[in-house]
Amino acid sequence: MNDTLQTLYNHVSVRNYTDQKISKEVLDQILAAACSGSTMGNMQLFSIIVTEDDEMKKKMAPLHFNQPMATQAPVILTFCADFNRFNRFCEFRDADTEAYSNMQSYHWAVIDALIAAQNACVAAESLGLGFCWLGTITYNVDKFIEVLNLPKHVIPVACIPMGYPQVKPEKTLKLPVEAMIHRETYHDYDKVAIGKLYAEKECCEETKQILEENNLDNLAKVFTQCRYTKKDNEAFAKVLMDALRKQGFLSDL
Amino acid sequence: MNDTLQTLYNHVSVRNYTDQKISKEVLDQILAAACSGSTMGNMQLFSIIVTEDDEMKKKMAPLHFNQPMATQAPVILTFCADFNRFNRFCEFRDADTEAYSNMQSYHWAVIDALIAAQNACVAAESLGLGFCWLGTITYNVDKFIEVLNLPKHVIPVACIPMGYPQVKPEKTLKLPVEAMIHRETYHDYDKVAIGKLYAEKECCEETKQILEENNLDNLAKVFTQCRYTKKDNEAFAKVLMDALRKQGFLSDL
Repeated sequence: MNDTLQTLYNHVSVRNYTDQKISKEVLDQILAAACSGSTMGNMQLFSIIVTEDDEMKKKMAPLHFNQPMATQAPVILTFCADFNRFNRFCEFRDADTEAYSNMQSYHWAVIDALIAAQNACVAAESLGLGFCWLGTITYNVDKFIEVLNLPKHVIPVACIPMGYPQVKPEKTLKLPVEAMIHRETYHDYDKVAIGKLYAEKECCEETKQILEENNLDNLAKVFTQCRYTKKDNEAFAKVLMDALRKQGFLSDL
Repeated sequence: MNDTLQTLYNHVSVRNYTDQKISKEVLDQILAAACSGSTMGNMQLFSIIVTEDDEMKKKMAPLHFNQPMATQAPVILTFCADFNRFNRFCEFRDADTEAYSNMQSYHWAVIDALIAAQNACVAAESLGLGFCWLGTITYNVDKFIEVLNLPKHVIPVACIPMGYPQVKPEKTLKLPVEAMIHRETYHDYDKVAIGKLYAEKECCEETKQILEENNLDNLAKVFTQCRYTKKDNEAFAKVLMDALRKQGFLSDL
């Protein structure tokens, strides 16, 4: 097996970092890798905000619900769907600046931002760094827009603190690969199939502990009643839709 | 520089493939890599539809505007944002099945699908394969849902034909890395900055040819007047929003 596959297979999320800084050389290699991926229509519809300053980390910490990774990591990379730069190009060349104020254009910019983000992650792991995706960027999108000074047509979609791992954790238990694969067309899942695919997750020691702590009888309820509830998701969805409107991606609706 | 960085830096989109099949072993390595990345909340909110059957390729070809890659490639991978499997898990465990019928949940599933897609791309290139992202999947999302038999809470977000390259093309001219990087906060672009960042793209031979062919005076207008027009983007945005509603991700609005 080649080194790249090895890097991909060995991925684990790392939430604790040593004091070691990330050198300019290493950071530049990661940023160059981020910018080497495919981009929709070769338009480069993304931007990367590099956070190294402690004051900026402190400002963002509460928006990340004070997760320690957000202040402990030497570098945080925030990947944005960005149609502003391309719109500026259009503006300064007397081309139509209203062509990309819609969800289709946003979608393409999201794809570009996430290709760049995952490339950065793969590069970072190949260089011995650890990282962790922070879902909080999608919750408080409006406040991040303010703190990061993002203009119209720019929306943050991924936030990834990086640093050298204190300890390399065990791999997380995931669904088996076959759970995600469909041949030719989608096959839906019946109760037996779900039982089989989730068996290992439902029976592991970690799940047993979580159920006891939360006084719940199964893992699905941990998600719907504690971690990611309807009420929270709908509130965050409203924040996201409002941000999409404010940033100019719903102007055709 | 390590092999993984080398793979990332050497990326080029490949649009012509030889007749060589992709072996089961190689395809399995790619699919395993796709499923090894981070996933939001460790929920694995994505599915991969593997197309190898010629009849399926023919059915999808017009939806891909008959781009030759869509029929010539031995394998096409379609990555879907998928909350159906997780919702089934909730349903069969008497948990709330309405918690994830919103844009916040869709956004998380999109992230998972694109992490998986980019991992698959990196793995494929490390194994000597070439690929190309097809933007058409985002245009005709409604029709792909039908052809691929996607249930509620599943939306295709990336479509990537793969095969062995006939010829390895030259790297595409991109904006310089510094165009995408912002330190601490976003810096907007004035006319001088845009001129500098786009100089190479605007002056290259390929652009000169395109301008002549299209009888246009600058590259920005090629995008807004020919390639990706307001009218087309808004029509595709409507298709996308309708699909989001039909697939159950706007039920809270």
